[in-house]
Amino acid sequence: MQQQISVITLGTQNLERSRRFYVEGFEWKPVFENDEIIFYQMNGFMLGTFSTQALEQDMNRAGLMTPGAFSLAHNVQRRGDVEPLMSRLAVAGGCIIRPADEPPHGGFRGYVSDPDDHAWEIAWNPAWAIDADGHITFGL
Amino acid sequence: MQQQISVITLGTQNLERSRRFYVEGFEWKPVFENDEIIFYQMNGFMLGTFSTQALEQDMNRAGLMTPGAFSLAHNVQRRGDVEPLMSRLAVAGGCIIRPADEPPHGGFRGYVSDPDDHAWEIAWNPAWAIDADGHITFGL
Repeated sequence: MQQQISVITLGTQNLERSRRFYVEGFEWKPVFENDEIIFYQMNGFMLGTFSTQALEQDMNRAGLMTPGAFSLAHNVQRRGDVEPLMSRLAVAGGCIIRPADEPPHGGFRGYVSDPDDHAWEIAWNPAWAIDADGHITFGL
Repeated sequence: MQQQISVITLGTQNLERSRRFYVEGFEWKPVFENDEIIFYQMNGFMLGTFSTQALEQDMNRAGLMTPGAFSLAHNVQRRGDVEPLMSRLAVAGGCIIRPADEPPHGGFRGYVSDPDDHAWEIAWNPAWAIDADGHITFGL
């Protein structure tokens, strides 16, 4: 089996508010958008922001909750990139839930939640290589 | 900014039970594991399964809930691959929350939750190319 995830879909209560966080905060460009969903082409897969109600209908499951028991991480190339990005995300509608500091395993990281309470870790991890296409390889 | 996600971390209440779903169900191989976390090298990023309590401590946020307002999708190459994989995931401790059928936008898909209630869409989407490295490209 391919060790592969094709799409990460985040439920949102307000697509425009979410769009501002990703487009102005991360400076990402949508590859597709309509009134219900926005897709961003990522490093080997798709990120989708989708009406939570439509996601519940699609998965046949009501009562999706936030904050969910998961996080997404965006790693940056330099330690000095962490805090400016966290600040930009906060200005674009995010909320800093952990100011950046050094975790026990090394590096430097903080957490910002998006406008729908999904948690993003913004991290500098010198052990994990990031190539020019944004592909991450595990290292110790 | 790179349009890049480095890690998806899923909170788990029982790492062994979760491991069985990913290793026996998806047939994925960990690249690293200890008593608290398991990493899988994916298509350009890392999937981590991590004690929910430890994740809450790391992100400085209590009360993470399931099911969260998100889903992950694993796309397969052929329509006929969807149901056998869903069955294997169910045998490995998952729960079928939507049997496979045809969504309005085409293709064929169903949903299975992992043992910690995280939702996986298993999908055949002929519009989105999957290359040999498992990288997905948006298409209409």
